[in-house]
Amino acid sequence: MDKGTYLKARNRALEYFSKAGIILTDKEKENIEVADFGLNRLEEIGLQLVTYINTKRVCAKELILFPEQTCPEHQHPSLGDLPGKEETFRCRWGKVYLYVPGEAETNPSCIPPAGNERYYTVWHEIELNPGEQYTIYPETLHWFKAGKEGAVISEFSTRSVDEKDIFTNPDINRIPDLEE
Amino acid sequence: MDKGTYLKARNRALEYFSKAGIILTDKEKENIEVADFGLNRLEEIGLQLVTYINTKRVCAKELILFPEQTCPEHQHPSLGDLPGKEETFRCRWGKVYLYVPGEAETNPSCIPPAGNERYYTVWHEIELNPGEQYTIYPETLHWFKAGKEGAVISEFSTRSVDEKDIFTNPDINRIPDLEE
Repeated sequence: MDKGTYLKARNRALEYFSKAGIILTDKEKENIEVADFGLNRLEEIGLQLVTYINTKRVCAKELILFPEQTCPEHQHPSLGDLPGKEETFRCRWGKVYLYVPGEAETNPSCIPPAGNERYYTVWHEIELNPGEQYTIYPETLHWFKAGKEGAVISEFSTRSVDEKDIFTNPDINRIPDLEE
Repeated sequence: MDKGTYLKARNRALEYFSKAGIILTDKEKENIEVADFGLNRLEEIGLQLVTYINTKRVCAKELILFPEQTCPEHQHPSLGDLPGKEETFRCRWGKVYLYVPGEAETNPSCIPPAGNERYYTVWHEIELNPGEQYTIYPETLHWFKAGKEGAVISEFSTRSVDEKDIFTNPDINRIPDLEE
């Protein structure tokens, strides 16, 4: 991702924090993380986030999804003795569709990013509106996509080790270098 | 606490959620927890809360403090092999003063509830305004009190086992029965 793309996404994310009434410190605003998963299709496939805290035991983040932006399918594996990440997504603003293993939705609200259909394999649909939440337990495949207005989502979890996430799409690089 | 006191506090807490722009489900609104710690002085000593999630590994809550209401001094002990609760308080609205071990503030912003002074023993002061946060590690004494407008605080933590909290004031009962 080039710096211009990063800065544009960061500023756009700030508008969503504002819409959701979530107050950030100046340092948090400057350091908003923008993930394009190394695919260079940020408008379609990406995630903007602020990590409030990430200790050995607890992590809390706010996630921003732009309209119809998708966070691609992945799971959080066990790491040695440490069970994989457990996470609860709570929608604060907008709407997000979450897909997990289980009975496939016959008429899903979302389609995967074009050309990447084979990397989206779980189709049990959960719609989250503001105030609604869902918990994902370790080693559970999941992906999510915002509705037409985008979404602001709080994530409450165990420790995050994002670079260890296992994505269904082998081309994904969760933590690519920022181009200067 | 009698039911009238509970309902009044619950409805008052809802006003603070609204001020902070935090959306709750109807079920969460109905089940807001009001803690008076068995002291029957809710206006001065108490806490209102919603627990979003509390699994073996992760807990997330929203806390409401009415103006100048105090959550009394306590700590979260280890329980067998399980280390005590670790919690991060993030102020979302209003102002809260947090007191922890360390260099005592010579001119503290808060005074303890009248007659209970001896149960407030840690005096290192941390002021939290919206967007600011602080992490309390296990077995660390702490207490907190809202500023003049009250406070809305997100808590991100490991599992909560509130009934095991150890309060400095031996008269406190964290989970008293609701009187009918």
